[in-house]
Amino acid sequence: MKIRLVLQQLGLVLLVMCLCMLMITAWATWQWYAAAQRDEYYAILGLGGTITIGAFVGLVLWFVSRRKLNGENESALAHWEDDTLGRREALLLVALTWLIGAALSGLPYFFWWHFNADHLLNPATTSGHEFASFASCYFEAMSGLTTTGSTVLSDITGIPRALLLWRAMTHWLGGLGIVVLFVAVLPNLGVGGKRLFFVEAPGPQQQGVRPRIRETARILWLIYLFFTIIQVLLYKYFGLTWFEAVCHTFATLATGGFSTHNASIGYYNAQRIGVFDSWMVDWITILFMILAGVNFGLYYHLARRRFKVVWKDPELRTYLAIIGVATVIVSGYLIGSTITVTDGSTVEGTVPESVRYGMFQVVSIQTTTGFGTADFNLWPFVPKMVLLLLMFVGASAGSTGGGIKVIRILIGFKIIIAEIERIFRPNVVRPIRIGGSTISAELKQAVLVYIIGIFVLFGAGSILLMIFEPEGSISYATAATASAATLNNIGPGLDQVGAIENYGFFSTPSKIVMSLLMALGRLEVYAILVLFTPSFWRSE
Amino acid sequence: MKIRLVLQQLGLVLLVMCLCMLMITAWATWQWYAAAQRDEYYAILGLGGTITIGAFVGLVLWFVSRRKLNGENESALAHWEDDTLGRREALLLVALTWLIGAALSGLPYFFWWHFNADHLLNPATTSGHEFASFASCYFEAMSGLTTTGSTVLSDITGIPRALLLWRAMTHWLGGLGIVVLFVAVLPNLGVGGKRLFFVEAPGPQQQGVRPRIRETARILWLIYLFFTIIQVLLYKYFGLTWFEAVCHTFATLATGGFSTHNASIGYYNAQRIGVFDSWMVDWITILFMILAGVNFGLYYHLARRRFKVVWKDPELRTYLAIIGVATVIVSGYLIGSTITVTDGSTVEGTVPESVRYGMFQVVSIQTTTGFGTADFNLWPFVPKMVLLLLMFVGASAGSTGGGIKVIRILIGFKIIIAEIERIFRPNVVRPIRIGGSTISAELKQAVLVYIIGIFVLFGAGSILLMIFEPEGSISYATAATASAATLNNIGPGLDQVGAIENYGFFSTPSKIVMSLLMALGRLEVYAILVLFTPSFWRSE
Repeated sequence: MKIRLVLQQLGLVLLVMCLCMLMITAWATWQWYAAAQRDEYYAILGLGGTITIGAFVGLVLWFVSRRKLNGENESALAHWEDDTLGRREALLLVALTWLIGAALSGLPYFFWWHFNADHLLNPATTSGHEFASFASCYFEAMSGLTTTGSTVLSDITGIPRALLLWRAMTHWLGGLGIVVLFVAVLPNLGVGGKRLFFVEAPGPQQQGVRPRIRETARILWLIYLFFTIIQVLLYKYFGLTWFEAVCHTFATLATGGFSTHNASIGYYNAQRIGVFDSWMVDWITILFMILAGVNFGLYYHLARRRFKVVWKDPELRTYLAIIGVATVIVSGYLIGSTITVTDGSTVEGTVPESVRYGMFQVVSIQTTTGFGTADFNLWPFVPKMVLLLLMFVGASAGSTGGGIKVIRILIGFKIIIAEIERIFRPNVVRPIRIGGSTISAELKQAVLVYIIGIFVLFGAGSILLMIFEPEGSISYATAATASAATLNNIGPGLDQVGAIENYGFFSTPSKIVMSLLMALGRLEVYAILVLFTPSFWRSE
Repeated sequence: MKIRLVLQQLGLVLLVMCLCMLMITAWATWQWYAAAQRDEYYAILGLGGTITIGAFVGLVLWFVSRRKLNGENESALAHWEDDTLGRREALLLVALTWLIGAALSGLPYFFWWHFNADHLLNPATTSGHEFASFASCYFEAMSGLTTTGSTVLSDITGIPRALLLWRAMTHWLGGLGIVVLFVAVLPNLGVGGKRLFFVEAPGPQQQGVRPRIRETARILWLIYLFFTIIQVLLYKYFGLTWFEAVCHTFATLATGGFSTHNASIGYYNAQRIGVFDSWMVDWITILFMILAGVNFGLYYHLARRRFKVVWKDPELRTYLAIIGVATVIVSGYLIGSTITVTDGSTVEGTVPESVRYGMFQVVSIQTTTGFGTADFNLWPFVPKMVLLLLMFVGASAGSTGGGIKVIRILIGFKIIIAEIERIFRPNVVRPIRIGGSTISAELKQAVLVYIIGIFVLFGAGSILLMIFEPEGSISYATAATASAATLNNIGPGLDQVGAIENYGFFSTPSKIVMSLLMALGRLEVYAILVLFTPSFWRSE
């Protein structure tokens, strides 16, 4: 294990994060000169303090690795330059990026709270008081970087805009990181997802060995940036401020779900920004959530005008079909009822409104974004259960979304059908095909184990939450959906963690458990689990 | 598909069940002459009516198949005589045996209730009033034949002894049927369990082709009978009546759990039959529950003095280890607390009492028996969760117990470990070995799919129960554990279906769902699921 190489790259990651924070600090300082709000000042201080620490640690990691190297002889240097990250190094780097990156990303919240003496004098009443505990800050930052969108904040309106922007940007960075990681980096290293992504995104592979990771990553980043610009402009056109447009775009494309309003997207209802604008904001959000839940490898094909590949992609078709069927069921239940919007107002369940609110929650949950326009905790049992099932299905592989992923559900379903037939026709061997390619025995096993792994972690998470909370203080539904919503990187659950609730009330151990669940879900379980495997650390 | 052959064998099964009922009727009639209780008389009438119907249907099925045959030519007859059941025929027969057998077994309850006019005049107050609905009778009978032990009865004491004996005998017949089916019949037909049982019970196979099903079945039946006699004698010696001893023995060896008392085994506490006898009754029950949860193939080896095979069996070792660890955890929580016995009395949690009550519930749940001596619904969260996990682990393959089975958990666990290692060492292929034999890719896949199948059915069952019950009338914990307890053939769950509660309050659709879950769990899912597969019915 080339630990030094890993630490050097980790240093680079921290420096990039500091650069992003620096941009926000610059913007916030400029804003502050205009408005001179007291709390924004402390947010700038918090960001500045974090940048100082992050830059120091990042530079030390970077230079220590280099200096050690210079102390060695020339041939070692040559060897080093040639060296690329191996499988184990990549896995360790990925795990550390999220686990340590979240600690750095959470510092601005923590500093902001503790730097301002006013906060300490009125701890319970000020909004943002949850940030007094570092576990809460870590939870919020992990929720951002893993594009989960679960928040500890009971009142978002009192948080300085600099911090809200940083919070949204953690989503955007995390989403970009995941797409690059799973579509460009890991497949080329032959790790985990490789075989899964080969099925439907062979594009970057077919070009030969040359362009590899760097070239693929560059294209993905441009696609991501393109979507970001389009969505910001659309939001701005339909009545949002630049600040709101940027924050919500970051949260949408990363399938994150952090909003700048307590009522989430439900804030922009007809009473507030007019009927047409409100309608458009919802549908823009729905559209871009769906787009963010598609395998980014397909956009690569689109850019090369390979429309047929995209059109015939089995995962894309299944993904859209699931959204369609779920929307019909959920919206059907809403017709004729009174829909409670997340800001507390109500809407009559006409057909267009039912489709709008039904589809929004379906897409928000299946793509694991977690935005809300309606309080689905008040809905009947069946639509609630549809949403709960969608939590586990999740979005497409290679998207910014979480969950088990549509392609795994599809493969798992086909395996189960084949297995049932094998009981009474043991001699008929029918290979399982997805989109023309046969699924290997290895991939089949990996998919089945992954699904079991998610169930096991979901169960273990629920049990740990029940254990760490005072007896009787949370319901079974709360524990189960909090576990599911963090593991699958969704955001809200049901009951005490419903669409209009938050995760602030959990104890510190519970927050650590859920932070770990978010990381496990985001990094497709393995990248974190291998760290606990003794043989991972043994040198070969 | 040779449907006629299947129906003929089904007729035979019904006739055997009628024969058992006839023996009980003879005993009950003799008893009735001594006591002349009014309700016992109607129970005899109910049994008699059922025998009439069952014998008629059984004989018709048997003779219709024969007569049709005689109408054909001689060579067809010769062909018929040679014919044995194929895979698909065996699966269909097994499914029909349980689905239709439960209908026949439930008739005595239904007839008893409706024959007695007194019942109809005071429907709600009489004990056994749940039997007014045939869905409840079917549920009770399916619970018996699948050795589940969930009851709809709120008050067992008012039920005629003839019916209680029949209820216990359905356990015994079901348990014997399952052992013969999974250890003798299906492996020889190459269906489902085959590969699983080959691993640790190769005994009957190694002798060559000759003895086959009939010989193996004969040995298993003798072992089963041997255990029955020993346990009855032990119970009798420690203070139970012959009737109680027989009923509880039937329920123990089948890992069923029907008792003749509302308080289950907890009825025999120290106040009622003395300290020493009470102590011994509990430990006898624990011992025989453990024995019933062992693969019966191992007793075959024991009988042939192959002690080493038994001692080295990996499933047996894991099974005993799980019982040991779970007992330590659960008993540890009970020490110093006040244990509530199922009859409402309390016991101080000294070390011996904690071990006794802790181990009893652990063994009862893991072997999926479902007897109770303590109301574990009142226990803290951790021991309750241990019991919930044990529900899914279950007993050994080839035993009378249900659940996923220890061997599958063992294989699944090893696959997951191997899969994690493969992430960072994709080129190291390490075969998975259990007890010296390598697990084939086919078996691995079958095990993984089985585990996923149980999770999916468990989830689907919970959701259906929530849908079929009035909104808000049952808790999530009730729905989830009712689904788990019936699917895994255990008996009691938590909350409204806890150790001292019953399943009588459920609606008819819910009872049908749970009856189906019991059959699915008992027949290892596939035997029922294939019936819904179109290609199963297509002729080859």
